[in-house]
Amino acid sequence: MTQPPDSSLSRLFDPRGIAIVGASATPGKIGAMPVTLLRQHGYEGRIVPVNPRADAIQGLPALPGLDALDGDVDLAILAVPAAQAAQALERARPGGIGAAVVFTSGFSETGPAGAAQQERLCAVARERGIRLLGPNCLGFMNVRRKVYATFSPAPANGIVPPGGIGMVSQSGAFGAYAYSMARERGLGLSHWISTGNEADIDVADCIEWLAHDADTRVIMTYMEGCRDGARLRRALAAARAAGKPVVVTKIGRTQAGAQAAASHTAALAGDDAVYDALFRQYGALRARTIEEFFNLGYALDTWKRPPAGRRLGIFTISGGVGALMADEAQDAGLALPEPAGAAQARLLERVPFASARNPVDVTGQAVSEPGLLLATADDILADGRYDALAVFLAAAGSSEALWPTFEAFARDMQARHPGVPLAISALFPPARRRELERLGCLVFPDPSAAIRTIGAVAGLADEAGSASCADMPAPAGNAPLLPAYNEVQAMELLRQAGLPATPCTLAVDEDAAVRAAAALGGAVAMKVVSPDIVHKSDVGGVKLNIVGEEALRAAYAGIMGSVRRHCPEAQIDGVLVAPMAPKGVECIAGVHCDPVFGPVVMFGLGGVFVEVLKDVSFRLAPFGRDVALEMIREIKGHALLQGARGALPCDIGALADALAALSRFAHARRADFSSVEINPLLALPEGQGALALDAVVLRADAAA
Amino acid sequence: MTQPPDSSLSRLFDPRGIAIVGASATPGKIGAMPVTLLRQHGYEGRIVPVNPRADAIQGLPALPGLDALDGDVDLAILAVPAAQAAQALERARPGGIGAAVVFTSGFSETGPAGAAQQERLCAVARERGIRLLGPNCLGFMNVRRKVYATFSPAPANGIVPPGGIGMVSQSGAFGAYAYSMARERGLGLSHWISTGNEADIDVADCIEWLAHDADTRVIMTYMEGCRDGARLRRALAAARAAGKPVVVTKIGRTQAGAQAAASHTAALAGDDAVYDALFRQYGALRARTIEEFFNLGYALDTWKRPPAGRRLGIFTISGGVGALMADEAQDAGLALPEPAGAAQARLLERVPFASARNPVDVTGQAVSEPGLLLATADDILADGRYDALAVFLAAAGSSEALWPTFEAFARDMQARHPGVPLAISALFPPARRRELERLGCLVFPDPSAAIRTIGAVAGLADEAGSASCADMPAPAGNAPLLPAYNEVQAMELLRQAGLPATPCTLAVDEDAAVRAAAALGGAVAMKVVSPDIVHKSDVGGVKLNIVGEEALRAAYAGIMGSVRRHCPEAQIDGVLVAPMAPKGVECIAGVHCDPVFGPVVMFGLGGVFVEVLKDVSFRLAPFGRDVALEMIREIKGHALLQGARGALPCDIGALADALAALSRFAHARRADFSSVEINPLLALPEGQGALALDAVVLRADAAA
Repeated sequence: MTQPPDSSLSRLFDPRGIAIVGASATPGKIGAMPVTLLRQHGYEGRIVPVNPRADAIQGLPALPGLDALDGDVDLAILAVPAAQAAQALERARPGGIGAAVVFTSGFSETGPAGAAQQERLCAVARERGIRLLGPNCLGFMNVRRKVYATFSPAPANGIVPPGGIGMVSQSGAFGAYAYSMARERGLGLSHWISTGNEADIDVADCIEWLAHDADTRVIMTYMEGCRDGARLRRALAAARAAGKPVVVTKIGRTQAGAQAAASHTAALAGDDAVYDALFRQYGALRARTIEEFFNLGYALDTWKRPPAGRRLGIFTISGGVGALMADEAQDAGLALPEPAGAAQARLLERVPFASARNPVDVTGQAVSEPGLLLATADDILADGRYDALAVFLAAAGSSEALWPTFEAFARDMQARHPGVPLAISALFPPARRRELERLGCLVFPDPSAAIRTIGAVAGLADEAGSASCADMPAPAGNAPLLPAYNEVQAMELLRQAGLPATPCTLAVDEDAAVRAAAALGGAVAMKVVSPDIVHKSDVGGVKLNIVGEEALRAAYAGIMGSVRRHCPEAQIDGVLVAPMAPKGVECIAGVHCDPVFGPVVMFGLGGVFVEVLKDVSFRLAPFGRDVALEMIREIKGHALLQGARGALPCDIGALADALAALSRFAHARRADFSSVEINPLLALPEGQGALALDAVVLRADAAA
Repeated sequence: MTQPPDSSLSRLFDPRGIAIVGASATPGKIGAMPVTLLRQHGYEGRIVPVNPRADAIQGLPALPGLDALDGDVDLAILAVPAAQAAQALERARPGGIGAAVVFTSGFSETGPAGAAQQERLCAVARERGIRLLGPNCLGFMNVRRKVYATFSPAPANGIVPPGGIGMVSQSGAFGAYAYSMARERGLGLSHWISTGNEADIDVADCIEWLAHDADTRVIMTYMEGCRDGARLRRALAAARAAGKPVVVTKIGRTQAGAQAAASHTAALAGDDAVYDALFRQYGALRARTIEEFFNLGYALDTWKRPPAGRRLGIFTISGGVGALMADEAQDAGLALPEPAGAAQARLLERVPFASARNPVDVTGQAVSEPGLLLATADDILADGRYDALAVFLAAAGSSEALWPTFEAFARDMQARHPGVPLAISALFPPARRRELERLGCLVFPDPSAAIRTIGAVAGLADEAGSASCADMPAPAGNAPLLPAYNEVQAMELLRQAGLPATPCTLAVDEDAAVRAAAALGGAVAMKVVSPDIVHKSDVGGVKLNIVGEEALRAAYAGIMGSVRRHCPEAQIDGVLVAPMAPKGVECIAGVHCDPVFGPVVMFGLGGVFVEVLKDVSFRLAPFGRDVALEMIREIKGHALLQGARGALPCDIGALADALAALSRFAHARRADFSSVEINPLLALPEGQGALALDAVVLRADAAA
């Protein structure tokens, strides 16, 4: 399903040898740092300083230019001023180096002159088949292979050990901070990559490469925006196919943040709600804060598998904190099933004043009776009713005397219940915490953070499977394109695309209206059709509940008279005749074209929900029924579709089918149509389907 | 406004001497620990072990019982089994000890037998004028006076220094954990108190005492529930009057948490939404998690004054993280005004590629140019447009080489801009962090946590002032009480209480209805009045828009005929005649009686808002206009009152006046009425007031 890894990036990230153009002997200079770091940490490939004004740098023989290299150097680091970068790269011989990292700033981030310089640099690289990381970036590290192609000061304050997390950051400062945080939190990295201006390689390329990298199990990424939506979708799909979770922080969630992001990045940021939809759709976990970013990465890296489902056991020595954790569990959408009766009975035998329900409170007794914790947890997990266990040990964690008890607990639990990931909240000394983590157990000082993190990663593997939305058959839609679509034509178009459009006819005169109504039978609605009239009710252009020929002719005359009086200039195409709508819950569905990601489907409830509460959900087209159901469930007013206020539950399945059909249409015809709005899309009672009552469709060229 | 401190609690918390009943020589025993801790930490008062089976304990002469004490011991610690506690206390001489702390469990938390034992203990204490802390508690510490009246193991793992935070926890385990967290976070405590079963002294008593305690500047408290609402209100009012912020964690926010809390505490927990209203009303900051609890306590303790307003400056060396912080600021309801033009120009002169707007990005240049940070921040703060400054220094914080720069920055900023509290996000080594904190500067590893915390504490002092809701004139309401109120009587009652009730008349026959309509003039609505008919429309009991005598008589006859047909058994009081309502936004206001806190006023918007979205706000009665305005603004659908969907903005002031009047009525008549529901309460366009269209009022005795 995914493509093989891009081997040109392998030459970048796992080079046989590295040339440093602008290498320097002066400590702290950006040309000195990679040489120092590579040697200090024992990079095993060749290190070749390039500097026309020196024979040797830091004790290594130096070459005057990239043309002097022979065969075994894959990567050049350019640590020369912006004005000299292209020139330096021009000296690379064809078939020589495969990649270049450009540290220096002064390119597109500074304005048009810098952008021209960046374009020249790219052209030189393209001509020579050289992949480019940067410019204006802090470079990268391949931690396992000790490739320190960076001038970030972060490693100088302490090294992060090799591990399973691949970290990619568009921002150097965020990246450097994240590196330091990883060190503080005891995480291990496979790669650390900063992409800077992304003249060639972007965050998406790195994600895709890491998806194929054997050393990487979890991908953590920071983004400011994306210029190539298809590339990012492909990258996230590759990560999902490889079973590697992606944790992402993207700035610009709010108007203030988006404004700041726009002034910071020259790049087009795109609509944040669309990014949010993208991440949900591809199972990427979006972190709102740096702390959440690390909590998620930490959990996914430390646990071999995230919890398979959402059933949480809470296990404490404090009833009060147990309740606090239950609060957080409910907020996080986790279920708290009760332990089996036998397990409850056994606990109450052991500790009469314990609370044997979930949250389970074994009381402070756990501290004085070493085997109690394990025996009780064992009983509770015996019949497989929990997907994860969160434990709170209060202040006891800081007691060295109790350490053997807790260590045995964690070890035996992992051994006996490997399918139930364990998170402990307590204040362990750092060394003790690391020991527990090595056993595969999460440790959080804040029990609420533990619960929130479990809530975010629980069932991740499952969701990734169910959210698959790949290649679905496109709708037929072979009718010739019209220059513009009135509502009758729009409804016909959607009907052909498989949407449940209410039958409606354009009648061009009174007799045609009578025939159309007769063909429908029953009460009808009549509405003027005109490209020039938007608010039809306001000009007397709508009549409802018309029964019988006489009433129909009167209604027709009434509409025409009123409309001609109010809008003498309007072009009148005729009247639309449609059956009166049954009772249902009014929804709105739409499609708009995101400049980065293409067609995006929107869903919401009618009335105040969309207009006042902005209660809408989005997904990128195309998608299937499962994703459509997620979209519907995401709405805050969702209860209204389930039969709130004494109404019947709606046919949510039919609504989902309609959204999925709309998404397939939007994707297949993305070149032809720029926007669709179905308002209302009626959700009928269970078993009766959904019904689109009115639609507006815009041609792609009309959007410009 | 507040009462003087309770001097009996001063004998508890600041005792001249301490007797330990059940004192032990065996390390780790609960009777040994207080003796050990008091001596080890240098308590300066007398320490008197009481134990009939020893002459000396831990080298101190022991007495056989409390009757052997002479004058200078204020406090007895009871570390004897539950069955012996009352007996031991009985030996205290009249006018002797003033307080007792009871460590042992086995009282009301274990069931009826334990509850009886607790009642006996209380009776003994009451007779002797002895205040009781516990039983089933971990005791307390007066950190400054080195009173370690506790058997918590937490101090054994390291002592918390004296400081300005008074900490009160109902739960011992939470308290012990919080003590350890305070130590980890470098906070100082004045007192640490655990209240356990609260047989006498509860959390509220401790808050009130700390409000008067000179050593305490900030109060942090953990609660599970409260049995005496008036006491808690008085305590929070005392803290507010003393200008001491209160940070509170209360469990049971959600259904799952409330269930867990109920099974944990025998006490009546009460409705969580009411606690939430209480905390908002008294300016107490509610923390959802232990981490938030400490972030708030930390900020309020470290900053001498919280920010005076909500205008935040964000100051970074990374544009990306600046945007992340801007996102959080918008979520937290903080404003991000731009720096003055001159300040922007000067920054761009210094660093051409900086971003001079807010968030300000001075770029990595700040790291290589020592004076840049301070000079720029100085410029930006020069004209007083910020209430707080949040700074992000990325990974640079871990660099010892840069420490002098950052230290000078923090020091000079505090000196030059003492009115602008400063929070820095960076990974400083712990000792460096402490230095910055001693300068009055907050340090957060996570920049989002810094912003959220600023958002929570900004303007706290102001709000405390404005939310005052103390003694307001009660409404007249001298009409005699009726056994029950139909809607006409209910509306009259509310009208007398100062609410804008629509004029309505009870007509007992057709002629009376005609007269009532004539008196009103214009179109009227008519509605059957019957205590037996709830859904009046369903039985044809409502007619709208009736004009003229003929139509009125027909409507009357129609209603009576239909109602008698549908409900032949119903008692019919007559019909209500009222003018047709003008157009407005339908709201709902109500009062219910909370068993702990008394009358609580509810406000929400009609329709889906209350019924589907549960979008309501609460406040405890009585309150004034400002609090009512807060209630209205708190509603998610608030935009609907401001003129969303093309409507005119509503008369929110009149709505607030109506809510305030309702709250005064509910408070003044709390003995007479148990519930009021006004539905709809119509919010009319700006300048036209509000209008109660229908009301149901229940007598207090009717609720039982």
